[in-house]
Amino acid sequence: MAIQVNKQLLEKGQVGAMIEWLASFGQTENGGVTRLLYSPAWQEAQYALKNIMDQMKLDTYFDRVGNLFGRLQGTNPNLKTILTGSHIDTVVDGGKYDGAYGIIASLIAAARLFNQYGYPKKTIEVVSLCEEEGSRFPLTFWGSRNITGDYNLVQVENVLDGEGVSFLDAMKNAGFDPDTYVSPVRHDIERFVEIHIEQGMVLEKNEKQIGLVTHIVGQRRYSIQVYGESNHAGTTPMQYRKDAVSTASQLISFLTKKTEEVDTRLVATVGKLTVKPNVPNVVAGKVEFTLDIRHHEEKVIEQYCNEIFNEFKRFTNALDMEVSISQWMDVMPVRMDEQMTLLAKEIAEERKLLYQEMISGAGHDAQVFGKIYPTSLLFVPSQKGISHSPCELTSLKDLEAGIDLLTEFLYKLAY
Amino acid sequence: MAIQVNKQLLEKGQVGAMIEWLASFGQTENGGVTRLLYSPAWQEAQYALKNIMDQMKLDTYFDRVGNLFGRLQGTNPNLKTILTGSHIDTVVDGGKYDGAYGIIASLIAAARLFNQYGYPKKTIEVVSLCEEEGSRFPLTFWGSRNITGDYNLVQVENVLDGEGVSFLDAMKNAGFDPDTYVSPVRHDIERFVEIHIEQGMVLEKNEKQIGLVTHIVGQRRYSIQVYGESNHAGTTPMQYRKDAVSTASQLISFLTKKTEEVDTRLVATVGKLTVKPNVPNVVAGKVEFTLDIRHHEEKVIEQYCNEIFNEFKRFTNALDMEVSISQWMDVMPVRMDEQMTLLAKEIAEERKLLYQEMISGAGHDAQVFGKIYPTSLLFVPSQKGISHSPCELTSLKDLEAGIDLLTEFLYKLAY
Repeated sequence: MAIQVNKQLLEKGQVGAMIEWLASFGQTENGGVTRLLYSPAWQEAQYALKNIMDQMKLDTYFDRVGNLFGRLQGTNPNLKTILTGSHIDTVVDGGKYDGAYGIIASLIAAARLFNQYGYPKKTIEVVSLCEEEGSRFPLTFWGSRNITGDYNLVQVENVLDGEGVSFLDAMKNAGFDPDTYVSPVRHDIERFVEIHIEQGMVLEKNEKQIGLVTHIVGQRRYSIQVYGESNHAGTTPMQYRKDAVSTASQLISFLTKKTEEVDTRLVATVGKLTVKPNVPNVVAGKVEFTLDIRHHEEKVIEQYCNEIFNEFKRFTNALDMEVSISQWMDVMPVRMDEQMTLLAKEIAEERKLLYQEMISGAGHDAQVFGKIYPTSLLFVPSQKGISHSPCELTSLKDLEAGIDLLTEFLYKLAY
Repeated sequence: MAIQVNKQLLEKGQVGAMIEWLASFGQTENGGVTRLLYSPAWQEAQYALKNIMDQMKLDTYFDRVGNLFGRLQGTNPNLKTILTGSHIDTVVDGGKYDGAYGIIASLIAAARLFNQYGYPKKTIEVVSLCEEEGSRFPLTFWGSRNITGDYNLVQVENVLDGEGVSFLDAMKNAGFDPDTYVSPVRHDIERFVEIHIEQGMVLEKNEKQIGLVTHIVGQRRYSIQVYGESNHAGTTPMQYRKDAVSTASQLISFLTKKTEEVDTRLVATVGKLTVKPNVPNVVAGKVEFTLDIRHHEEKVIEQYCNEIFNEFKRFTNALDMEVSISQWMDVMPVRMDEQMTLLAKEIAEERKLLYQEMISGAGHDAQVFGKIYPTSLLFVPSQKGISHSPCELTSLKDLEAGIDLLTEFLYKLAY
């Protein structure tokens, strides 16, 4: 599918065609997209985007890890760069909007600004970040963390994908030879703006077009093991049991109920649970479950964890059972730039867009940049909150509203 | 290993050697026993037992499905037969005592009775039932249900084992050709006595040597499906969730607590539970779990099921979620013969055995016979309640106490 750039990017509704076009790279049988880091579909998508950027007369280049940049040169060489964009990679059989929309919206915004106002004072760079999801290799934010200097080759030296391909080989095969690696860290960036689908149902439920993200939540993940005693389901009276399933159920009921008491914005999820031996007529001897906890204030997460883990220990102790709790993820909350949020809010009001402030419960590249530069994260609605699925959908009207806001926002920041 | 029968069966402690001897057929690496219906190990064990019975001068024969009988002829041909024994088959890597003890104890009792008193008035038959566990083919009580006429070839026509071998082929290869099948139903049996290990920890906790079983519990098994909505663990606020894991946890906590309220002798077990999609950062869309419910009174089971299932529906309804409940097992409780229990109790008291009345939470051949003839089920303790495991153990003292009671019991019934 060929895209005729110049005129079309300026037309209302063109965003829909571009979403479909980008989704054609890595399209799945289910109508979803699989575009894993450094895969052939990923390479095709990045080079196709580079083509579009070239047609737009942006200065285009890849950095050493495969982040693609399209630069609209600023007239004042003393001013730093406004970076805007999102990530090109997807989960397996993911949706067409996650990441892709942020890149396309930035391209369209840059095209419209240039068409209307010419070159900006500050350089605007549209970035198609190489990796955010962690769906091929077990690490996330490879693109943004290279730009901020948080990551370099050390983090991926011994990393393999699910098929045993090493990170470094995959990188080399995609044309980014690790032997020529120099950190692509950037010191010339003033701020970062990302627009993304919400991946939740808050905007839809509240009938808003735009979410102005004030914080990206911190996340902790734990693995909880409940040790009971495997016994015969018929011959063991209830009072003699150490039933790992019924005990784990009580812990899960407790932790779920406790979220409300601590803070209604706190979320806690037991998404994975396994039982041993997992046989209908045997009292379970062991249950292992994961616990994913998120909130935008570290102290709330801390308080919640203390309260539930104390109760876990008290409760299992009273049953003469054991519980073990191990943490395997700890990500701090990140605050988006307040001044930028205020600016986005003023624009939304001027343009009569239905908006609200909100917290992002999902992780985004904006949290990597947000620790270092002033950063904004803007959301458009996700229908039914569905994401990471071929059913991901945002209406054309909402996509356009997001681009409208982003365009004006970049104008205020760069012109 | 050869067993010298006549003298040795009369000696105290010989039961231990016989348990070891029988466990040598189908011995596993872990020190357990695997003796699946119609397997080579099963055939060897049945023919070895037949040999012992032959040496004891019992009249021995197999019926058409492989139940082995050793007959000590009664002097009064008008009286019906006292049947005693248990099953020869085991679970995979099971223990040495489950089933085997009941056969050996019956043989030793018959030998001692004949040695001391000669021929009984009523015929005593020791039976080594071919199948009870359901561990090779998905059906149970094949031996006893053929004797009672509940089962015939119809029930096994299309039944396969885990390796795809048909029941009928396995039967034929073991020397029991289905083409010559005639129902081995017996109409000459007056009553049945089975002695078995408890497979629970009640006798041990109460420091008793003998359990006089008054009832064998009824069992119902259900499959419960909780349908929620799979969602992003970060972007879905708690109040918008339909979390199948947390909902299932509340149902399980409820059903566990409810057992106490209904009857402390009721047991309810969720032994198997699976989550979909079972991913740490995804709110689960579906949970399926099994529920095994046992009590010795059908009306208690009925009341309990009504109460919990009504609550399951009310609870999920209030969350705008769905629950489906399907039953896949329904076994009625069976009462053991009261007069026989009274007789066993008198004997236990005379012989100063530490005993108690109790309910069997596990299924036994006695429940098949107990629906048709007056039947007794006697228990000896299982150390730590362990069963269906190579660690199954009953002390020699307890094994002998059981044989002591059984011998006197058969004397009172047949002489």
